[in-house]
Amino acid sequence: MNALMPLGMVSELPSENQMLSDPAMDHVAGKDYFVERDGQKFAGMHLLVDLWGATNLGDPELIDRVLCDAAVAAGATILHSHFHHFSPNGGVSGVVVLAESHISIHTWPERGFAAVDIFMCGECDPHLSVPVLRAAFRPRAIELDEQRRGIVR
Amino acid sequence: MNALMPLGMVSELPSENQMLSDPAMDHVAGKDYFVERDGQKFAGMHLLVDLWGATNLGDPELIDRVLCDAAVAAGATILHSHFHHFSPNGGVSGVVVLAESHISIHTWPERGFAAVDIFMCGECDPHLSVPVLRAAFRPRAIELDEQRRGIVR
Repeated sequence: MNALMPLGMVSELPSENQMLSDPAMDHVAGKDYFVERDGQKFAGMHLLVDLWGATNLGDPELIDRVLCDAAVAAGATILHSHFHHFSPNGGVSGVVVLAESHISIHTWPERGFAAVDIFMCGECDPHLSVPVLRAAFRPRAIELDEQRRGIVR
Repeated sequence: MNALMPLGMVSELPSENQMLSDPAMDHVAGKDYFVERDGQKFAGMHLLVDLWGATNLGDPELIDRVLCDAAVAAGATILHSHFHHFSPNGGVSGVVVLAESHISIHTWPERGFAAVDIFMCGECDPHLSVPVLRAAFRPRAIELDEQRRGIVR
């Protein structure tokens, strides 16, 4: 999508459209915001999801809805979303900013390819977002790489 | 940053604040938007940058400026930026959407930790963003992982 002219911002989720979870538990002095799993302490889970042979990669409104659904499926809280539609290839770039980090997407419809990142901290499970992507974009193949960010060594 | 209350959106870069490159070369039928380097064809370069022992992680305006500077240093075109400031830990989450993909950041000031993603396609060099991050956040250590997304096999 290098040097493509943006068609402009096509969607903007109002920040009041949120599902805020109860923050009461966080108002504890000295709370540790890193997570602990399998004996490892780290900041958050980051899935790099590459979709091949996928469809619906040129429709920013649909992609916005799908990524928001994917965030909710993982138990995340949506704060903001922003998507761009590019010409001439019709690719879409966008991000959903979460209370628990973000989901981003960049699509290359001419190749049926999309690169999705699902970065979530806290109790969210980013793996629960993947079936939502699979149902919406119907990829022929998915390559998934799981990275734990900020591992305390 | 799990279940933290957002203080709200603190910055929003107007989309006219752009440095658009010449799109003329892209209006060629059948142009391939994947890049080719070292004999490998792929969609884009994705750097996962973990900063440890870092400073300035609780100031959303500063972080917004730094990420925009980092994008420009890499040769990227800024389309949109959005940052949130969280309480009570003072962490910041945000993203700069680029014509060439995105830069995102999530900070844990209480640990001096920040997770930055620099995803760029086209001719941009995301490695040129790293010195900008280093100068602004003065981390004691940086862990950098380079992923090529969408490798054509």
